[in-house]
Amino acid sequence: MTMPAPESPDVLIIGGGLIGLATAWRTALRGLSVTLCDAAPGRQASFAAAGMLTPVTELHYGEEMLLGLNLASARRYPGFVEELREAAGGADPGYRESGTLAVAFDNDDREMLADLHAFQRSLGLEAEWLSGGEARKLEPMLAPSVRGGLLVASDHQVDNRMLLAALFTAIERDPRVRIMRANVAELTVANDRATGVVLDDGTAIAAGQIVLAAGCWSGLLRGVPADVLPPVRPVKGQILRLTVPSVYKPFLTHTVRGVVRSNHAYLVPRAHGELVLGATTEEQDYDTAVTAGGVYELLRDARALVPGITELPLVETRAALRPGTPDNAPIIGPTALPGLLAATGHYRHGVLLTPATAEAMSEILATGEVPEPVKPFSPQRFGK
Amino acid sequence: MTMPAPESPDVLIIGGGLIGLATAWRTALRGLSVTLCDAAPGRQASFAAAGMLTPVTELHYGEEMLLGLNLASARRYPGFVEELREAAGGADPGYRESGTLAVAFDNDDREMLADLHAFQRSLGLEAEWLSGGEARKLEPMLAPSVRGGLLVASDHQVDNRMLLAALFTAIERDPRVRIMRANVAELTVANDRATGVVLDDGTAIAAGQIVLAAGCWSGLLRGVPADVLPPVRPVKGQILRLTVPSVYKPFLTHTVRGVVRSNHAYLVPRAHGELVLGATTEEQDYDTAVTAGGVYELLRDARALVPGITELPLVETRAALRPGTPDNAPIIGPTALPGLLAATGHYRHGVLLTPATAEAMSEILATGEVPEPVKPFSPQRFGK
Repeated sequence: MTMPAPESPDVLIIGGGLIGLATAWRTALRGLSVTLCDAAPGRQASFAAAGMLTPVTELHYGEEMLLGLNLASARRYPGFVEELREAAGGADPGYRESGTLAVAFDNDDREMLADLHAFQRSLGLEAEWLSGGEARKLEPMLAPSVRGGLLVASDHQVDNRMLLAALFTAIERDPRVRIMRANVAELTVANDRATGVVLDDGTAIAAGQIVLAAGCWSGLLRGVPADVLPPVRPVKGQILRLTVPSVYKPFLTHTVRGVVRSNHAYLVPRAHGELVLGATTEEQDYDTAVTAGGVYELLRDARALVPGITELPLVETRAALRPGTPDNAPIIGPTALPGLLAATGHYRHGVLLTPATAEAMSEILATGEVPEPVKPFSPQRFGK
Repeated sequence: MTMPAPESPDVLIIGGGLIGLATAWRTALRGLSVTLCDAAPGRQASFAAAGMLTPVTELHYGEEMLLGLNLASARRYPGFVEELREAAGGADPGYRESGTLAVAFDNDDREMLADLHAFQRSLGLEAEWLSGGEARKLEPMLAPSVRGGLLVASDHQVDNRMLLAALFTAIERDPRVRIMRANVAELTVANDRATGVVLDDGTAIAAGQIVLAAGCWSGLLRGVPADVLPPVRPVKGQILRLTVPSVYKPFLTHTVRGVVRSNHAYLVPRAHGELVLGATTEEQDYDTAVTAGGVYELLRDARALVPGITELPLVETRAALRPGTPDNAPIIGPTALPGLLAATGHYRHGVLLTPATAEAMSEILATGEVPEPVKPFSPQRFGK
């Protein structure tokens, strides 16, 4: 009971988060026509996120390959946002070179931070070890108990909501891109090739190439062969937003990350006074309830690092779902089904990896060639 | 620049909280015509409140006189809500005879609770001392560390939002009452007598008697002589609402109050699954920001008493302003200005004192006689 196709774009993108929107924008710049489908674009993980661009501070053992892509995407950010600002008629994408300060709450936490520092240096990354006093000199709101810190001058931030808004504006100004506010119900496959999609309301759309960029829902699309579906799962994060009244400004100037009795906490100060506190990491299937326990732990840990948050208005509580993958790395490139590509599974690094992903995807869509930096993240790397 | 009066009711009530609404309802039952003015009735402290009807558990030293009125109002509740249900065409006012369990977190808290118990008994009040084990038998979700408890079988609760809704319905069904959704800007006085009010939009309304029931804003009304203005001040309370998913029901059956390292905390379980956690007590002028510190402390203390709240969705954070008075007692009855009466300053006990206040006020408005139980709470008791 499908209805006739309204048009047939060169590229159809399923999902209007940062990855889908940025891919649409960059792909249209290559001269291709793009339709992006999402009933509520920009309202899920991309909206909830804190927007940290912190590849050095968030380094994890065993993720050295991902580090390369993370660093490349971080380096690409200044140029990316300048091009976006121009494409969006001057809208500010919210990029802020704030630097990041990672601090330790107790002696065990300091051990962890020292280990991280050694690992960073072994990879040639720059990070400066600070005493507790030096850290407090940089950020006077830090707790007197803070035991030491690591200043990463190159780890910055972007206001993900401003970035979303700038992407929407850039896309609206580009006649090659169309946003359809509808969800995709099913992929259409003919002769072992993806040929289009069917929307929730039954509308069928044919397209030359289809990009699955639906975050943690990317593994649920009907019509995709089981061995082609990306192995993503939802990883719940609860996150809070506070406001810094002008009397307390600037409050914090760097992004502050901390290890508090082995829990990771962060505080991301925006130029306009928002302070983002995050985030829990929970395997709770598709549940997005904000819980008493989640909010309690976020406030407890942030308060241990920066006691002054006590006085700040709490203006938003939210939970959203990161797209996790078996190896914590993203899924970027052509799938085993011709015509179907994936740009998903970015887990904690969706905002950071937006420029690198969008540019790799636009290259692949325009030329068929997979750029070297994203080859390790092929959708086809997972065993059948 | 006042405009002509639209009508002249017998009674004009300034303020549409529980006190104003219930006074309007009861006064109309005496045959008087009533106009109630409030731009947003039922949206301030009455909406935020937890609805505890706990005169015995909330007993304070030095407030024995208030205890009498509190107990009388608590005893009046079952009849009051039955009459209201009938007047509201069957709408449930949310009264629940849950009983109240006060528990102690550590040994110091147990001392405080034992002192309270002794004081209760000295006044002839019924409260049963329980061991920690006995308390947990009644409420299995209580923390293993709870040191003891006090069961007050006569202290109940009402869902203040259901009560507000029932009062609105009862009033709508009564042609003698009119709600004007506008704020009062000024009291009109002529020949040393209150004669009416002027609304924000300039509309003038004459009235035979005027009731000031504007909660913590009652002391700000223009036109009222300075020595007649009730000495109320805002006392901020932050309060949270959680939901009990059906898998965890009933979770709690009694209202649970606790002393946690000298802080007072309470959890009020509604029949329909809401769980109210309260409340901070802050002198912050008219500020109603929900703060990181307020939410943190409420969750910390409630969690200490009932660790299982961790899993519950946090669905609402709110701050509102109680009308505090110099002696923590309400202000009920004729002021020194003929024609002007007050029903305000109920501080922590506005929901509890709604029946007693509304009935006393309707008696005064209809007969001019001040009933014995409210005489100690005259607006004229404060020194000039």
